[in-house]
Amino acid sequence: MRQSEFLYKTYKENLQEETAKSANLLFRAGFIEKVGAGIYNFLPLGFRVLENIKTIIRQELNKIGAQEFLLTALHPKENWVKSGRWESFDVLFRLKSQLEKEYALGPTHEEIIFPLMKKIIQSYRDLPRAVYQIQTKFRDELRAKSGILRTREFLMKDLYSFHRDNDDLEAYKNKVDQAYLRIFKQVGLEPIKTKASGGTFTSGFSTEFQVAAEAGEDLIYRCPVCREAWNEEVSQSNRCPRCQVEAETINAIEVGNTFNLGVKFSEIFNLVYNDNVGQTELVWAGCYGIGLPRVLGAIAETNNDDKGIIWPKSVAPFPIHLLVLYSNQTKIDQKLKLVAEKLYQTLSLEVEILYDDRLTSSAEKLAEADLIGLPLRLVLSQKSLEKNQVEFKERKKQKIILKPWREVKTEVRRWLNSSNN
Amino acid sequence: MRQSEFLYKTYKENLQEETAKSANLLFRAGFIEKVGAGIYNFLPLGFRVLENIKTIIRQELNKIGAQEFLLTALHPKENWVKSGRWESFDVLFRLKSQLEKEYALGPTHEEIIFPLMKKIIQSYRDLPRAVYQIQTKFRDELRAKSGILRTREFLMKDLYSFHRDNDDLEAYKNKVDQAYLRIFKQVGLEPIKTKASGGTFTSGFSTEFQVAAEAGEDLIYRCPVCREAWNEEVSQSNRCPRCQVEAETINAIEVGNTFNLGVKFSEIFNLVYNDNVGQTELVWAGCYGIGLPRVLGAIAETNNDDKGIIWPKSVAPFPIHLLVLYSNQTKIDQKLKLVAEKLYQTLSLEVEILYDDRLTSSAEKLAEADLIGLPLRLVLSQKSLEKNQVEFKERKKQKIILKPWREVKTEVRRWLNSSNN
Repeated sequence: MRQSEFLYKTYKENLQEETAKSANLLFRAGFIEKVGAGIYNFLPLGFRVLENIKTIIRQELNKIGAQEFLLTALHPKENWVKSGRWESFDVLFRLKSQLEKEYALGPTHEEIIFPLMKKIIQSYRDLPRAVYQIQTKFRDELRAKSGILRTREFLMKDLYSFHRDNDDLEAYKNKVDQAYLRIFKQVGLEPIKTKASGGTFTSGFSTEFQVAAEAGEDLIYRCPVCREAWNEEVSQSNRCPRCQVEAETINAIEVGNTFNLGVKFSEIFNLVYNDNVGQTELVWAGCYGIGLPRVLGAIAETNNDDKGIIWPKSVAPFPIHLLVLYSNQTKIDQKLKLVAEKLYQTLSLEVEILYDDRLTSSAEKLAEADLIGLPLRLVLSQKSLEKNQVEFKERKKQKIILKPWREVKTEVRRWLNSSNN
Repeated sequence: MRQSEFLYKTYKENLQEETAKSANLLFRAGFIEKVGAGIYNFLPLGFRVLENIKTIIRQELNKIGAQEFLLTALHPKENWVKSGRWESFDVLFRLKSQLEKEYALGPTHEEIIFPLMKKIIQSYRDLPRAVYQIQTKFRDELRAKSGILRTREFLMKDLYSFHRDNDDLEAYKNKVDQAYLRIFKQVGLEPIKTKASGGTFTSGFSTEFQVAAEAGEDLIYRCPVCREAWNEEVSQSNRCPRCQVEAETINAIEVGNTFNLGVKFSEIFNLVYNDNVGQTELVWAGCYGIGLPRVLGAIAETNNDDKGIIWPKSVAPFPIHLLVLYSNQTKIDQKLKLVAEKLYQTLSLEVEILYDDRLTSSAEKLAEADLIGLPLRLVLSQKSLEKNQVEFKERKKQKIILKPWREVKTEVRRWLNSSNN
């Protein structure tokens, strides 16, 4: 992608009244645009990161037998009245059609998936099933804050699983927990599996996946010995109940959660199955969420320096940033341009390249490249051209390495194939 | 995918009070579930078709330089007041937050994209730009009807383009029109490019892409000589103004549209650029939509027989349906099972297979396969096993062809690579 044609814009100033580092970095680097409190557009750079996160989530969920589908965002009021959450769900957006029909805007989908599964599940042969969607959720937050970490509208992956009994459900929930750990590690985060409350979903506990970050609005405790972690909402004691030592106190961002719903919603929506001896039994169910903009925000929040974002290779909008630096912007060096164009064409056959082909000053190009933060930067300048070389620099490292022109393709391939994120 | 584990359900009966063939076929074959009037869930089968349509759209739009991003679905009221469409847009869903902040639910995105582009476009160097999203749109239809052809919530691809002048805009609109024709042909439709009114988007004409179908709610005329077509809303005369012959009258489904917006929204949102001689000029813009469930519905509406749907290969949820037919369901033939399992494993390395591994009667399996309508059906039975053969049948043809076991993989590859949709 030629930067001269790419839809983006960078800023020198932070967002007004915004303190979260990730929000300011993502705004200044042209990944997001703020429309209003808790409402954001994702520009092509941000969209690309979301898509890469989606791909990783899909791969891991498909591996554990989950099937993708798409549920409605408009929920008939009666479904929420039936579950008792029309009144009790504190961030529910409610609206009315011109025909006076009332809807909720889906903040979660138990009220839709359980009636659907009631039509599909009849016998024990129809179990277990796991199904997920990646869809926009709406939550009428009183205080939207921390940029894209808590918004009124956000992409969420929500997975639901259905089982014959609690053992089968717990075994599957454990698989999901493991898949979540793999997902978060792949996108460049260090997830902390945390015991938390069940909210309106279950009277039992839930599992949260937290990422340590100052901007995080959750406070969690973690035992330095057994590494168990718990949210302050379940116990405000900073002493590990098992090891009897003082726990670390950590500010953290919740990027995912997994719930054993038990038979709560199956009772409400009468979701039952016939077992193999002719008895009718309630279906056991779990639900599992990942907020995609939260993940994106947590990556930016924990991968940056004073110059900008440092994207992990796995989710970067483009893996490689190619810059051509003209010493004279009014009279450009045609030979340098030709070599840069050829390098862009050659490398584009291997991988998507962001190519800064603009007639902008070198200082501005280099500063913007650091701000956007693509993992590998290649620079062509008059100086490197004279030596038939290209500058290689990884965003996360300081060192600049000069590579002969003829080795560039091989070096790029080697770098792309390295497991190093 | 093993059918015994696949999330789907077929029905013998049509939807209640539904006359559209596509809605009934898609419901009975387990592609969609109706939640309420104009509100549908897409089950894995339906979701997979939507994803395939998305892939084709993305390929064609990327080819004409459009970049993908994602805008907000919640629109601040003030944006719609500014455009004058808060009151005039007849199917606008309006809602209020608990903080009494008012929003529209995006039925289209001019009110969001123009303020965004105002931040990005400054000079003639920032033009042209084309950007699109694939996102859920909300429309408060008085009469949701014809199943997924007119709904209150639907996935839409909306593309917006920005230009220095009308010539550049018209040239790009022509590129989009050509891309649309390619998209609709690839998904198995026969698009009719049709002159139509501009609605609330422009005082000029728009271009619609229509598909002939009885369930279509549009009435269009097409000249049998020059092949020009127009919507009755622009001229109710069934006489071609150019050729002076009687036009065909066609019921049709509108699957896409393209608009030259002129400078209408640029004036409202003050979207201007500095040209290369220091003058400030208004930006010329176009918008271009494709309704994905409409496309899916139009395909089902025009590709079926009395047994069910006939999916084009390009968008089918799975290209191949493998059935194993047991003559005795209570005492299954272990050798037949072994061969079927091996065939499933082998073919799954080539392509995604839906494998009916259930202990269901042959008649039921065959009827369900026809109803779901995957393009190629492979059948293994006691009879074919004895001859070391596999039955090949294309859904759109009557003929069953027997192929020796050892040729199956080659035959499947040949079929997959054939351009035949």
